Amino acid sequence: MFNSQDANYMARALELAKRGHFTVSPNPAVGCVIVQHDQVIGEGYHRQAGGPHAEVFALRQAGAAALGATAYVTLEPCSHYGRTPPCAQALIDAGIARVVVASVDANPQVSGRGLTMLRAAGIHAEAGLMATESEAINRGFMHRMRTSLPFVTVKLAASLDGRTALANGQSKWITGPAARRDVQRHRALSCAILSGADTVLIDNASLNVRWNELPESVQASYGEYNASDNIDDVATHQVHQPLRQPLRVIIDTRNRLTSNLALFSVSGPILLLRTQVTGGFNAEVEECVLPLTDLGQLDLPELMAELGRRQINHLWVEAGARLGGALLDAALINELVLYQAPKLMGSSARGLFDVSERVAMSQITELEWQDCRKVGDDIKLTAKVKN
Amino acid sequence: MFNSQDANYMARALELAKRGHFTVSPNPAVGCVIVQHDQVIGEGYHRQAGGPHAEVFALRQAGAAALGATAYVTLEPCSHYGRTPPCAQALIDAGIARVVVASVDANPQVSGRGLTMLRAAGIHAEAGLMATESEAINRGFMHRMRTSLPFVTVKLAASLDGRTALANGQSKWITGPAARRDVQRHRALSCAILSGADTVLIDNASLNVRWNELPESVQASYGEYNASDNIDDVATHQVHQPLRQPLRVIIDTRNRLTSNLALFSVSGPILLLRTQVTGGFNAEVEECVLPLTDLGQLDLPELMAELGRRQINHLWVEAGARLGGALLDAALINELVLYQAPKLMGSSARGLFDVSERVAMSQITELEWQDCRKVGDDIKLTAKVKN
Repeated sequence: MFNSQDANYMARALELAKRGHFTVSPNPAVGCVIVQHDQVIGEGYHRQAGGPHAEVFALRQAGAAALGATAYVTLEPCSHYGRTPPCAQALIDAGIARVVVASVDANPQVSGRGLTMLRAAGIHAEAGLMATESEAINRGFMHRMRTSLPFVTVKLAASLDGRTALANGQSKWITGPAARRDVQRHRALSCAILSGADTVLIDNASLNVRWNELPESVQASYGEYNASDNIDDVATHQVHQPLRQPLRVIIDTRNRLTSNLALFSVSGPILLLRTQVTGGFNAEVEECVLPLTDLGQLDLPELMAELGRRQINHLWVEAGARLGGALLDAALINELVLYQAPKLMGSSARGLFDVSERVAMSQITELEWQDCRKVGDDIKLTAKVKN
Repeated sequence: MFNSQDANYMARALELAKRGHFTVSPNPAVGCVIVQHDQVIGEGYHRQAGGPHAEVFALRQAGAAALGATAYVTLEPCSHYGRTPPCAQALIDAGIARVVVASVDANPQVSGRGLTMLRAAGIHAEAGLMATESEAINRGFMHRMRTSLPFVTVKLAASLDGRTALANGQSKWITGPAARRDVQRHRALSCAILSGADTVLIDNASLNVRWNELPESVQASYGEYNASDNIDDVATHQVHQPLRQPLRVIIDTRNRLTSNLALFSVSGPILLLRTQVTGGFNAEVEECVLPLTDLGQLDLPELMAELGRRQINHLWVEAGARLGGALLDAALINELVLYQAPKLMGSSARGLFDVSERVAMSQITELEWQDCRKVGDDIKLTAKVKN
């Protein structure tokens, strides 16, 4: 059904898709390659919500040569009129003969319909080639389509013995500069960053993405700005993407944050979760009152539902032991990223997760290791929470 | 000075040396390859204290062909009469023309003297080829030769958030069977295992090496027993090494251990550190009274000095947070091995190191990551304590 050439072209399409990673939110990252007589005649990827889809870029490059060609697309072409016309129609109009798709769209609005539309037009359309790889690129988007909730990654930084700060609160710096650069990359990939007022107040944290702190490989993926860039050169030339700032979501149920904090002095949207709207913030700040639980704490499942409604695919959480513990107790964590420093702080130092006490080993949270690697002088461990 | 062929033969000699790893204690592991006209004519390794050294095995295999040959030895040949005659003399007597040595012996009794003896006999003797690799094989031995103290590795098993047991003490099992097999391998490699009475009492732990729980690769290195094995076949055939049981060193300053415990029902030497000799144990158990500190705790530096005197090269510590913390406070840990399970236990669960409180980040223990890898469903992290 698929041959090794198909796999090569799809691998290329997946590579292209990743170029949009830092800018497409809330859309999925998609890549497209058009091939005629074993020659690539068009390439494209989706760069930004509201902008042309991957197929459109690739078809423009291919031009009339697309007639009878094969298109490789990492995600099922859309069949509905959204902000742009349906890509399935564009492929039909261009006279494409065969379409190979990696993963079928998880969005119930379009799932399977793009393939149906193509087949109805006589196009040979197949799906499932490198679907796992394609799912991985858009796991936040796929997760939200399936559950209406964001995919939640909690970031932790601790010593080898699982401590985040001395008993007196000192913690600068447990992990090294390479780990902090890696955090910048994760922030840039996420749709929103969640933190608590304590973190903002104690560290006067900005929680934004900072160009000069991004790893060089990521800086390159934003490229140089040139407004007159020929749109057909998208796959071969660097095209500027202005730094997209993820939505910063701050839990401030005691209304302690004031407009003079560093958080508010850097540009980018902010959602403040409070018990009353006080005003006095700049135009990028939205104060939002969400229900509290009986214990007077923010209703976290309700928060996740709200973030889902706001099209947050991937939520990156940088929080202390209390918020982390509350998310764990509410079973709202999908993944953990732990930067572990080669240090020992001892048992009097502060722990990672303040949770309700577990009294049996059967009650503890089970995860599955995804990855372990050195990042500078630290170790980065990634684990998925088991359902 | 050394060519690539030299490196190949030395790599082979290092491979041979490792075959003795599980049995040579308290001696170093040494391998030897004898080469004549680019042909290996003799191979050997040191199997057991009191048995022939690597050079002797290799020379026996080479026989008269050793005349004018080159010998590759991973550790400087000894020059003194110990339990066996000096190997330097054996190489001279066999008419060896050139000797290539990896590392010079750290034992002040012989360091440099073997090379001197060889050169005085007109042999071209060079040292330093793959010295780092050779040092790594015998780091316990090298460390004891230089410091008179054992190299101390502390083993830990914890959840991702650095917890060893629930607040109520439950902990079976945090890590999986592959990690426990790996612990068996480390035990088998060590000269002694240190633990506390609490561990023995709570888990009724035997703390021995168990053949059927060793990884298969290690089982193979013990091989099949055949008393009539031709000694010349040592390098090519499996030769049985009876399971060597490391000395089990148990801190029992409250004299709580009794002879009915599992610890005493499995064979192997035991050193009980107590405040008085009570007797009533089997012949393999030695009760030893060591000085206490002003706080009534065992004087750990004195314990290490005693273990050094008893020729313990590598000490493997399996202990709880109290003993681990005391060793850390006394700066007696050289290396940590942490098996980290993909689990979260929460901050009320028990920590890894009960140490005196650190009040500044400058006081915390700094380590250096050596390795991180998956072991079954767990992650194994290895770190060296910085001096």
